[in-house]
Amino acid sequence: MKVSTILAMSLVTSSLLFGKTTIMEQAKKAGLKAIPTTDSEISKIIDPNHILTKEKVELGKKLFFEPRLSKSSLISCNTCHNLATGGVDGLAAAIGDKWTPNPHHLNSPTVYNAVFYDAQFWDGRSHNLEDQAQGPMQATPEMASPKALVEERINSIPEYVEAFKKAYGENVKIDFTTITATIGLFERTLITPSRFDDFLNGDENALSVSEKEGLKLFIDKGCVSCHSGIALGGTMQPFQVAGKYKFASIGDFKGDKNGLVKTPTLRNITQTAPYFHNGAIWNLADAVKEMGSTQLGIKISDEEATKIVTFFNALEGKKPTITYPQLPKSTNKTPKPIID
Amino acid sequence: MKVSTILAMSLVTSSLLFGKTTIMEQAKKAGLKAIPTTDSEISKIIDPNHILTKEKVELGKKLFFEPRLSKSSLISCNTCHNLATGGVDGLAAAIGDKWTPNPHHLNSPTVYNAVFYDAQFWDGRSHNLEDQAQGPMQATPEMASPKALVEERINSIPEYVEAFKKAYGENVKIDFTTITATIGLFERTLITPSRFDDFLNGDENALSVSEKEGLKLFIDKGCVSCHSGIALGGTMQPFQVAGKYKFASIGDFKGDKNGLVKTPTLRNITQTAPYFHNGAIWNLADAVKEMGSTQLGIKISDEEATKIVTFFNALEGKKPTITYPQLPKSTNKTPKPIID
Repeated sequence: MKVSTILAMSLVTSSLLFGKTTIMEQAKKAGLKAIPTTDSEISKIIDPNHILTKEKVELGKKLFFEPRLSKSSLISCNTCHNLATGGVDGLAAAIGDKWTPNPHHLNSPTVYNAVFYDAQFWDGRSHNLEDQAQGPMQATPEMASPKALVEERINSIPEYVEAFKKAYGENVKIDFTTITATIGLFERTLITPSRFDDFLNGDENALSVSEKEGLKLFIDKGCVSCHSGIALGGTMQPFQVAGKYKFASIGDFKGDKNGLVKTPTLRNITQTAPYFHNGAIWNLADAVKEMGSTQLGIKISDEEATKIVTFFNALEGKKPTITYPQLPKSTNKTPKPIID
Repeated sequence: MKVSTILAMSLVTSSLLFGKTTIMEQAKKAGLKAIPTTDSEISKIIDPNHILTKEKVELGKKLFFEPRLSKSSLISCNTCHNLATGGVDGLAAAIGDKWTPNPHHLNSPTVYNAVFYDAQFWDGRSHNLEDQAQGPMQATPEMASPKALVEERINSIPEYVEAFKKAYGENVKIDFTTITATIGLFERTLITPSRFDDFLNGDENALSVSEKEGLKLFIDKGCVSCHSGIALGGTMQPFQVAGKYKFASIGDFKGDKNGLVKTPTLRNITQTAPYFHNGAIWNLADAVKEMGSTQLGIKISDEEATKIVTFFNALEGKKPTITYPQLPKSTNKTPKPIID
């Protein structure tokens, strides 16, 4: 068979499957965006103000894994946003200090790719990761640390003081704001390029045929109306637009003051069950169907949901390689763990 | 000044400080042993039966960090034996499932260098790490997982099943014993060579003068009667030989059936506060003085304790570089976290 004939057949197949425009073009038109391929392009997105340095990120990593930032000295950021398990804890609702469940029965969102969000927290009350990190550290059902305790713990450890000076200069004030902001800077680097990015960046073969079918359904059904951009989510959207969420009675979360809810990212969604703000749905296909009825006012069949989930596999990204840190030792001045 | 004169003076200084035999010789005579320098010599100690393979150790690492091995899916081996903080949690008594403190008020011992111990647990009831790993996983105040739950969780995750087959062969039975044993195999690799090893291995300058002074005191005071071998500890010894432990009333631990208690390792001891089986003493110099009165029947002065602690700095070891693992995702068959 001539190459030209094969090419022609291939074009026919493409058009049968995906209409006149390619699915790649459709995806881009629908607002789906790739993580760029070059460091400088990535940097424009994750570090627009050019504040990331190696020293800050390395220090932020240590602090992200630092249990002494919690009142008990047992809970770190990584406890609920575990980088080994998709950046989440895999629980329906977060568990924190004294084994306290999140009082609103809220599910821990993934920290991976959170830098691509417009807003942080389910109610979008924070607009960047540096600000976000202040919340859970102080919240009594989470890390339960008063600001002063965090500051005292870190300042009591000479290696940390030295690391802050290296990162910010000799006159740095190692206060709660700087400590939490440094964690946010590390979190900016937690991005996970996937086969879907390769696809959007031009590699037609990065997705399998069935993944492309799933992507087409994902677009055609209207999922992209909320799940778009680089994060495939991360913007504030109305919830229960077309119907009541089946598990609305679990917890008391009602969204922000306008009832808007932050759309979760779909990147690594296959690794971050359970789903929804209250973690009530464990099966991803069920979650897709629930979105059809609550948000789009359509019935998504089992077969369609399965196909869409097949596409989601292509959103599993390559996680940054993290060397588990060695944290500096406490001193006799370090405030003790508070267990009560 | 002639070189020969300098050498002669140096010998005089040595003999003034350390008597006729060198402190290096004294340390060896006292039963202090180095971690060997070659892989084959290390292997003879940590893997005498030649069972370690790269596949088993890598799988064991994943399982060590695997929170789904706990009933709640929130607690891993690394929660209490945190490799970032000297292999311990830094709490007086361990906290486990449902925020339960250890019922005997027992302190989590470090997992680093535990392979060099004769016995595991404070009462020495387990003789190797593979066996030890079975305990905390099942204990209701720790990870609280029934054997069947552990087996069901792991067998529900195809990537784990595949990894076990690669490590042990196609016919492997992925049961509780194999799962916990694999964790023990990983733990065998957690050894931390230090400047003290360099010293015992012949590098006279690996310790500072004041560290050598501390070492000499450590030997002369008799600390080596229990803190010897490679671990500088790890054997079962009588406790409160010479006097009552100041905090004996905290918790109800009385040692094994003969009242013997496992001597903790002194490797990385500067990083593993608080001290003693019940974690009652936070200051290392205080711990040294307490040992003088309870075990040796002598008064160790503040100055002497400080010098001995100075020696302990040389026992801070180089931790193995651990790449934080990416754990395989749960499936719809994976038993859910149990939070109650």
